Amino acid sequence: MEEKALKELLDSLTWEEKVGQLVQLSGDFFHADQLAVGPQKKLGIDQKIVDQVGSVLNVTGADKTREIQERHLKKSRHKIPLLFMADIIYGYRTIFPIPLGLGATWNPELVELAYQQTAEESNAAGAHVTFAPMVDLVRDARWGRSLESTGEDPVLNAAFAKAMVTGLQKDLLNGGGIASCVKHFAAYGAAEGGREYNTVDMSERRLRQDYLPSYKAAVDAGCQLVMTSFNTYDGMPVTGSKFLLEDILRKEWGFDGVIISDYAAIQELIAHGVAANDRQAAKLAIEATTDIDMKTPCYAKELEPLIEAGEISADLVDRSVYRVLKLKNDLGLFEDPYRGASQMQEEQVFLTEEKRQLAKKVSSESIVLLQNKRAVLPLKPNQEKVLLVGPYGDNQELIGLWAVHGQREDVVTIKQGFENYLDSDHLVYTQGCDMLEDYTFLGEFGATKDQIEQLGLNEAIKKQELTKALELAKQADTIVFALGEHTMQSGEAGSRTDITIPQIQQEFLEKLTVLNKKTVLIVISGRPLVLTKEIEQVDAILQAWFPGTEGGNALADIIFGQTNPTGRLSMSFPYSVGQLPIYYSEFKTGRPLTSPTHKGRFVSKYLDSPNDPLFSFGFGLSYSQVEYHELTLGSEKMVESLDVSVKVKNNSKRATVETVQLYVQDVTGSVVRPVKELKAFKKVELESGEEKEVVFTLTRAELKFYTKEMAFKEESGAFIVFVGANVKETQALPFELV
Amino acid sequence: MEEKALKELLDSLTWEEKVGQLVQLSGDFFHADQLAVGPQKKLGIDQKIVDQVGSVLNVTGADKTREIQERHLKKSRHKIPLLFMADIIYGYRTIFPIPLGLGATWNPELVELAYQQTAEESNAAGAHVTFAPMVDLVRDARWGRSLESTGEDPVLNAAFAKAMVTGLQKDLLNGGGIASCVKHFAAYGAAEGGREYNTVDMSERRLRQDYLPSYKAAVDAGCQLVMTSFNTYDGMPVTGSKFLLEDILRKEWGFDGVIISDYAAIQELIAHGVAANDRQAAKLAIEATTDIDMKTPCYAKELEPLIEAGEISADLVDRSVYRVLKLKNDLGLFEDPYRGASQMQEEQVFLTEEKRQLAKKVSSESIVLLQNKRAVLPLKPNQEKVLLVGPYGDNQELIGLWAVHGQREDVVTIKQGFENYLDSDHLVYTQGCDMLEDYTFLGEFGATKDQIEQLGLNEAIKKQELTKALELAKQADTIVFALGEHTMQSGEAGSRTDITIPQIQQEFLEKLTVLNKKTVLIVISGRPLVLTKEIEQVDAILQAWFPGTEGGNALADIIFGQTNPTGRLSMSFPYSVGQLPIYYSEFKTGRPLTSPTHKGRFVSKYLDSPNDPLFSFGFGLSYSQVEYHELTLGSEKMVESLDVSVKVKNNSKRATVETVQLYVQDVTGSVVRPVKELKAFKKVELESGEEKEVVFTLTRAELKFYTKEMAFKEESGAFIVFVGANVKETQALPFELV
Repeated sequence: MEEKALKELLDSLTWEEKVGQLVQLSGDFFHADQLAVGPQKKLGIDQKIVDQVGSVLNVTGADKTREIQERHLKKSRHKIPLLFMADIIYGYRTIFPIPLGLGATWNPELVELAYQQTAEESNAAGAHVTFAPMVDLVRDARWGRSLESTGEDPVLNAAFAKAMVTGLQKDLLNGGGIASCVKHFAAYGAAEGGREYNTVDMSERRLRQDYLPSYKAAVDAGCQLVMTSFNTYDGMPVTGSKFLLEDILRKEWGFDGVIISDYAAIQELIAHGVAANDRQAAKLAIEATTDIDMKTPCYAKELEPLIEAGEISADLVDRSVYRVLKLKNDLGLFEDPYRGASQMQEEQVFLTEEKRQLAKKVSSESIVLLQNKRAVLPLKPNQEKVLLVGPYGDNQELIGLWAVHGQREDVVTIKQGFENYLDSDHLVYTQGCDMLEDYTFLGEFGATKDQIEQLGLNEAIKKQELTKALELAKQADTIVFALGEHTMQSGEAGSRTDITIPQIQQEFLEKLTVLNKKTVLIVISGRPLVLTKEIEQVDAILQAWFPGTEGGNALADIIFGQTNPTGRLSMSFPYSVGQLPIYYSEFKTGRPLTSPTHKGRFVSKYLDSPNDPLFSFGFGLSYSQVEYHELTLGSEKMVESLDVSVKVKNNSKRATVETVQLYVQDVTGSVVRPVKELKAFKKVELESGEEKEVVFTLTRAELKFYTKEMAFKEESGAFIVFVGANVKETQALPFELV
Repeated sequence: MEEKALKELLDSLTWEEKVGQLVQLSGDFFHADQLAVGPQKKLGIDQKIVDQVGSVLNVTGADKTREIQERHLKKSRHKIPLLFMADIIYGYRTIFPIPLGLGATWNPELVELAYQQTAEESNAAGAHVTFAPMVDLVRDARWGRSLESTGEDPVLNAAFAKAMVTGLQKDLLNGGGIASCVKHFAAYGAAEGGREYNTVDMSERRLRQDYLPSYKAAVDAGCQLVMTSFNTYDGMPVTGSKFLLEDILRKEWGFDGVIISDYAAIQELIAHGVAANDRQAAKLAIEATTDIDMKTPCYAKELEPLIEAGEISADLVDRSVYRVLKLKNDLGLFEDPYRGASQMQEEQVFLTEEKRQLAKKVSSESIVLLQNKRAVLPLKPNQEKVLLVGPYGDNQELIGLWAVHGQREDVVTIKQGFENYLDSDHLVYTQGCDMLEDYTFLGEFGATKDQIEQLGLNEAIKKQELTKALELAKQADTIVFALGEHTMQSGEAGSRTDITIPQIQQEFLEKLTVLNKKTVLIVISGRPLVLTKEIEQVDAILQAWFPGTEGGNALADIIFGQTNPTGRLSMSFPYSVGQLPIYYSEFKTGRPLTSPTHKGRFVSKYLDSPNDPLFSFGFGLSYSQVEYHELTLGSEKMVESLDVSVKVKNNSKRATVETVQLYVQDVTGSVVRPVKELKAFKKVELESGEEKEVVFTLTRAELKFYTKEMAFKEESGAFIVFVGANVKETQALPFELV
């Protein structure tokens, strides 16, 4: 449809029809066989509103979406198609690693491909919009949604934000891909105490410097929608924040796409205490230019009265409606309201061999080798007796909490992966121990007391398993533990104050590690866990996140040496929860730990803990040893750009991929600057014995920051450039920006 | 001296003499017998500067100060006396409880008296200025300087700030008292991760709403000096922050007293990375109106060259010098440079019986009864066998880290206190266990490895003590444990990630509590500790802080029922370090734990921990039961003020003092408001069986806050008033502000 026709369509709508476009309801409102009386009553809206609604939440599947769309169009006076939006976070049917694992690939190109394939599956299943990418920067592992973030760094997160949006929206205007809705704008990841939905408070300086760049990158990459976050900023819930939505997002960044509230966030303005009732909530949200009201009656019931009372302008609402109509039009829904979705299409594109291969590759690159004492890894196939134990040993939960459309039965378990390398003479498996000591918290999802009591192993089996595991362990050469968090311990509202492997598993680990066998620990988790005890107890540790559909294969390939691990952490792993929040790019203090003038007690540190995390940002081992030398600068002075080169040599007998990282320190600024900031990185393939020169071109623009006067610009003066394998192991050279 | 004469004096000084007034050096620069070559060389200044210096750091004692002053005046061309400034934080010779304990008294009048007596002792000892009160608001118990703060609440902290300044400066202009230097301006207590000297980042809204009021209260109470804090605010170390020092402190608040940097903070602008060298550091600090440079050469060496180069105005420096001269003049130092200090005076005022009595009273009111299962407390004198154990059982370290001028030998230990109530047939004491498992961190204070190895009990004695304690415990009816942190584990640079009782003491406690005796735990600590295990292990818990010189007597009086405990927490005690930061006045979220619309998982909470602390703000038990009833409002609407009354009845056989607390919730605001805010409190004496009506008059002004537009004003609408014994146990009524 041409722009003119679209505007005419807008003009031809009644207020009721217009407002309908700004309302999103969930699938339970669209049952075929009956009017959805229950949900309607609960929300306080009537069928008339449902019939005018503009978009549908979390209904997917070609058949289901087609059916609802078809029925809707029959009723729609102007044949305005519904938009189907869904949570498709890290894969639709083929599930990739959780985003925190994607962050650990340091490979945005690969992740772009993964999101492109996700879009292909989603498209076939009738989804038009995905609430992805989630690009919230996170520095506190207590927060459950660490799972959905690519980590703690603005530059790395921005690179992934761009890759994900680009991948999802490939060929969007030609019927391909799906529209991307970046979330959660803004700074949702900074919830106080890592407690979900808690207050966010920070300076505008920190907001702009660290938290906004990843959203900006998504907007610059052309994402069609933005979702507001649940948190407040400067005392205002973002859904009602003109400052963030209108001033920054729309005016400064020029975003003219659709802004949608997070689930029920408009009505939650009342609980937040900035609106006294639905009407005030609707007014705050629409004035902030929030276009779509997800799952509350506020817009549906209050926008028209607000216009009639002269409290908001009709134009304000018209602009929102137009943005929604334009999105539908851009997606071609007026021409093909199904966008080619069909069951046949699903069958053709779901979980193809190509997709499984890609999923395995991504999963492989996401896994981080944290420790490899005595070089116990890789194991040799069929040469020693391997005991695989732990609740994740043969478990299809490897896709994690937020893989809404993934199916457990598609998942290759770790045991299945191991069977590619070990025959039954060399592999024994037993679960050995339960996942949790207490499943009570699952009651929150509506499980009854009886159901909860059924969860986990019963007491007899628990004992039996432990005895069996101990017996088998004595006969084994190597024990591989597959331990970690329960799926429900991370993800949305999965905040924890104790971020260790569950106690019952820790105790199990201890019982078996005293046997002094070679030991390998696979950690499955949605966040950085505290592994301070475990590094002493086991030889090798692989951080595997929730590795997705092909997780078992990817892990087996690494453990048996088929793949050389290359993952690098994108979020610090703390020594203890008492270090949180923790991140590498901390600001200079007046009394640094390495102070030239202050010694002993009076420096910035803890009495009982290092300042540094247990495993630092950028850290990850491989089976190779890569040496860095000859860090060289093109000049001691930088005008527009500066070439930084380093030689990396693979001193091992295996080919590897080295992630070369470049950090900068701005020595003196008009405000305090971080000790190090990531500016660039390159993944470099190195054959056995091979040496390569890696050249970065650092530009003047990359040295910009928010100065004392909040101007975004660079300041001339002394800098230090650091290059190395991770943030702590670097070589450094000074230069001057002139 | 008249103002005119003072100005003439200023005009008659050379630049060298002027700048000298802005420099403070420590005692080692003023040795009688020799020029202080070592310290001078280290700092890079020469004797000429020392001879012109304006003030002396941390030299006290009448003889010492007189000697230095006398020598100095002989050399001084204009006979400008030195100012003697010192860290006198919670007592000079008579040591009161640490300020966190003072906070728990909820008794500013009493604390004013304590600081008045402190000033009397300090004055006798030749101190002119004390670096007190420390009024930094703190919400993270990892921070070691929690010890020096009165807690987490702006209203309570402001009340104590005023009381302390008033007490210290009583009769200041008539030769009495000492000048008060409030510190650390501003927001030093919000160091990230509770790590000393770490970055502070927050919105201006939070700064003004929560962090500034206590400093403002001190300024309004007339404190003569303000000390800058080590931290940054909005990217700028406070010592160089025009925004905080000039715009807010001087212009908004009208403060025209002396601003002094914290120790070496001007030169630390270089480490912070906002100055490249001493000259830039000096320029930033003087332009921010920091008057005195504590213990760095920056002002001494750079101010004159800066003026000569036209980089700063001469007037800027003149104004600083005048402020210092004026302070000296206001203190009467030109007339009597010793301010009456003498050894005789010291003997007359130090540690008098009256002061000991006051110290005991303050200490009694600071001790908080956290738990009293089976009503095991109070114990009856000489009726049962009591075993007192633990490293604090007979230990004179009860005065804590920052009682610089206190003397251990003055301290009444807990054992000595118990001996007032128990004869030797009924009291046995043995230390039982060591303070720490590892004293290595004390090496930071210059202790050698050999010295450190001497610390604590040797292995043989450790075993012997444990055996003895177990044997005695079996024979005892009641075991009283005196456990806690080592003195060096809190205070400045005493940040900890694990805030429990030291492991070795925990293990000891466990060994004795399995014997199923009546058990009482006295906790000595400089911060809220995590007592989650201990509440299950013992019957009664008394939080005693570092209780000061009379701590042993105060504790014994409470334990044996002579005194009814009345202390109330001024800082939340967390369940675990994983809850930090934690404070009662948190902001409303959109999904509160008690949400009417959200149930189960998707509310703001942790999966594995309550949101609430283990012991809440305002909490504290007594030996009485006080009932609250008939909460009544003078009106449902408030115009200028509102009377809030409640009846409190002492249902016990003991007289008690009840701390009645009034909180308010602003239901809907232009920005998100806290769930509760303390507005008023009253300590009410209640005889056995007595009932009293307590009336508060809440005023319109008390409902002011920083609105969306950052105006400090009240907004009409719905409010809730809560009255009760602590923040969690309240009765509530709504009212409307019209």
